[in-house]
Amino acid sequence: MHTALQFLKDRFAEIDDLRRAGSVLHWDMSTYMPQDGTASRGRMIATVEKVAHEKLIDPAVAALLETASGMPDAMLSTDDQAFLRLARRQFTRASKIPSAFKAEFLQHMAETYDVWIHARKANDFNAVAPFLEKAVRYSQAISDFFNSGETAWVHPMDPHIEDADPGMTTTGLKTLFADLRQDLVPLVRELSSRTRPRTDFLSRVYPKSRQLEFLNWLAQSIGYDFNRGRQDLTHHPFMTKLGAGDVRITTRVDETNLCDGIFSTIHESGHAFYELGLSPSLDGTILGHGTSAGIHESQSRLWENLVGRSREFWIYFYPHLQAHFSDTLQDVSLDEFYHGINCVEPSLIRTDADEVTYNLHVMIRFDIESQLLDGSLKVRNLPGIWNDRYESDLGVRPPSDSQGCLQDVHWYYGSIGGMFQGYTIGNLFSAQCYDAALKAHPEIPKAMAHGNFSVLHSWLKENIYQHGSSFFPQELIRRVTGQDLSSQPFLGYLKRKYL
Amino acid sequence: MHTALQFLKDRFAEIDDLRRAGSVLHWDMSTYMPQDGTASRGRMIATVEKVAHEKLIDPAVAALLETASGMPDAMLSTDDQAFLRLARRQFTRASKIPSAFKAEFLQHMAETYDVWIHARKANDFNAVAPFLEKAVRYSQAISDFFNSGETAWVHPMDPHIEDADPGMTTTGLKTLFADLRQDLVPLVRELSSRTRPRTDFLSRVYPKSRQLEFLNWLAQSIGYDFNRGRQDLTHHPFMTKLGAGDVRITTRVDETNLCDGIFSTIHESGHAFYELGLSPSLDGTILGHGTSAGIHESQSRLWENLVGRSREFWIYFYPHLQAHFSDTLQDVSLDEFYHGINCVEPSLIRTDADEVTYNLHVMIRFDIESQLLDGSLKVRNLPGIWNDRYESDLGVRPPSDSQGCLQDVHWYYGSIGGMFQGYTIGNLFSAQCYDAALKAHPEIPKAMAHGNFSVLHSWLKENIYQHGSSFFPQELIRRVTGQDLSSQPFLGYLKRKYL
Repeated sequence: MHTALQFLKDRFAEIDDLRRAGSVLHWDMSTYMPQDGTASRGRMIATVEKVAHEKLIDPAVAALLETASGMPDAMLSTDDQAFLRLARRQFTRASKIPSAFKAEFLQHMAETYDVWIHARKANDFNAVAPFLEKAVRYSQAISDFFNSGETAWVHPMDPHIEDADPGMTTTGLKTLFADLRQDLVPLVRELSSRTRPRTDFLSRVYPKSRQLEFLNWLAQSIGYDFNRGRQDLTHHPFMTKLGAGDVRITTRVDETNLCDGIFSTIHESGHAFYELGLSPSLDGTILGHGTSAGIHESQSRLWENLVGRSREFWIYFYPHLQAHFSDTLQDVSLDEFYHGINCVEPSLIRTDADEVTYNLHVMIRFDIESQLLDGSLKVRNLPGIWNDRYESDLGVRPPSDSQGCLQDVHWYYGSIGGMFQGYTIGNLFSAQCYDAALKAHPEIPKAMAHGNFSVLHSWLKENIYQHGSSFFPQELIRRVTGQDLSSQPFLGYLKRKYL
Repeated sequence: MHTALQFLKDRFAEIDDLRRAGSVLHWDMSTYMPQDGTASRGRMIATVEKVAHEKLIDPAVAALLETASGMPDAMLSTDDQAFLRLARRQFTRASKIPSAFKAEFLQHMAETYDVWIHARKANDFNAVAPFLEKAVRYSQAISDFFNSGETAWVHPMDPHIEDADPGMTTTGLKTLFADLRQDLVPLVRELSSRTRPRTDFLSRVYPKSRQLEFLNWLAQSIGYDFNRGRQDLTHHPFMTKLGAGDVRITTRVDETNLCDGIFSTIHESGHAFYELGLSPSLDGTILGHGTSAGIHESQSRLWENLVGRSREFWIYFYPHLQAHFSDTLQDVSLDEFYHGINCVEPSLIRTDADEVTYNLHVMIRFDIESQLLDGSLKVRNLPGIWNDRYESDLGVRPPSDSQGCLQDVHWYYGSIGGMFQGYTIGNLFSAQCYDAALKAHPEIPKAMAHGNFSVLHSWLKENIYQHGSSFFPQELIRRVTGQDLSSQPFLGYLKRKYL
């Protein structure tokens, strides 16, 4: 039976290698690939994904999982138990979707993506609507594949959510988000009515190469190890793990938007810290990755917001920033800078939103994808509903679909459903997590004001990072906080900071 | 039966995708991968290669090749006939080597490579000798796998040569090379006795970033399309095809060696032109690659030497180079520059050798690998034999093994045998090929002196590039020149140029 376990480990290590090879292809496509490489790259990525899928749903894997199921837990190390649980989960879920369907769906989404690129530029929702309708049907078909046995669902979005954030459900999240919205809407209203802080200096001219120098130094100064990664420019910043010693981040710089680069870099560094902090014993195994979309997002948002938008952080970093852009920031005090980067204001674009209004953006998308999937919303009515919701929830109405329902890539490249909840789960847990860290080490903010992040890094590594995917999200949340996921700590943080 | 053919095409397209994914992993490893990425990258590359190998030696492929063999040629297009011939060849050869042996061998070579890196730096041949002995045994075992049926051989190096340069044999090449050596040795002696041209200006200080600007412009000016590729820095320059629209080159720049970067860039551009000039109908198929190591090298050497070291080439480019480095090249005339870059002089390092002495370096290696494989030379005697041969053939004796038998990576990363003949095949055919081009279009050099390469590009595309791997090397050589591979055109070129 140990042989069965070893075979499974080898097979899943191979699958993991293929997936990471796919990640290298993606990274390259987003950074350095020449213009005309697109067509063949799409095919290569599809082939690598297909081969990994074949390796996973192989009947030999089923048989060996069955054999390994016969092994009593006492014979297995904790890591092996966690491995078998995750291997079984990945096998079960992958086996539900026929290979041919998957290939067809991936092909459709690649086409949709191309159409979306042009539709967004041209503000032409109608151009992409038929593709989106088809994507909804594919996504519903995926839901149906899961609607039996141990994966039967209550809402068609459940299997999509389960994929990204194991253990979470549409119903559970709806309750949690309703709770959050109830407090968030009046808070936004109150903060919006205040005098707007000065923000003019954030859109002065900051030459791109000077920004990039600062961003590389910033990443390094908060603990990102350039021997184990690198930072490059892309349109849509991301973090990618290509190996235990190769976890890369990307950022973007806008000459007249100082915040864009800074908070992208801190955000992606947060994702990278998670992957770089895993226990070496999980290297190259399927456990050697962050455990879910939401938990991953909690780590990036913790660094971006709770750390990176705190006064203590900038007590240390602002003098450096000011020195780096001495001609441009001379007339701006630390206090003005701090308030400027924390200006709360309803806006149209999710990725530019402040940390208070951000979740309202996410919840609109969450509700809409659940309605698209259960059929209560038709694609043709999407722009209207989107705009109405922005007006009612945020008090702003998009003047165009480009600034409305065409702004995010997710539905035009991934599936419909399960794409957005992770952002809010991440925000909520980031506050719970940071509270727990501060409870254990109240000195963290003080150390930060001296540019010292070592205690925070150690705590996160010990409590979150090292475990990789050994715990499912809710298990991890309970281990770290003694409680379930909740909106109260996040609301408490916002109120303490802003009121 | 058409279904069998389609299945085979799909399968080989998948294999090609996986191989090119492996090439992306290699390119990244050699350019941008962070320091600590090495370990996991080695494993990923091995996995991708292994999976491609499994897909190739699959019994289903054997059965379908059998079925397709039943199809009369008249039912098949020319492309399909060429595809089936190459598919059969790849299947037959890959099937000879057991997967487990291959994995073990690759693992050993990866270890040897690491040891070699240090041994070369430390000038310590003994450190790597046991690894090389084992590599010889592995390479002999590979020979033995092929020594039966239609792949039986006369010399153990034959299957290694057949792999890189289909249709060539140890015996055939020994005769050809002996012929070449006979004329080359006295030619080198005569040229070495002449007054050495001025070369001081080639080792002045040329700042790296300024060099790179020039090299990018140079590649573009000779026809390299940056929409379909890019040029980056590496230790060991190479060209790699990652897709029909993504053929990349790398170069290296040395602040005090102007030639290094220039001739690397032209050389790798030559390789790239071949891959970029393939018929679009071969895209993504196994025919969509240059046909052999030697033919590929002929295309890079044609550009590097016959074009790139010609007077006409520099009539156009020297004024640009001089303007680009106006402070450094002011006192150097075109004539001095031309003679400086064509200085013939026996030296120790193959990659720095001029075009006249270059083949003497290659032939020493060719003879040594053939002796290592047939057992007439023991690894422990390698340094002595190497040094003696340099003394007798080139009149110089390496003062250290780092500048002797440790200089080239090939035996320490690939196999022993089949590694070097391609360089000389390339040199010989480059001259035959260029002769044929000039015969068809005598105006080529004149156009070159105006920076115009279009006729040469068209001729090469028409006669060489477009065919990809549809013809085996000797078929292609006969098609292009009406003759077999021969050393006389190359010797004729050298004599015309240098005497």
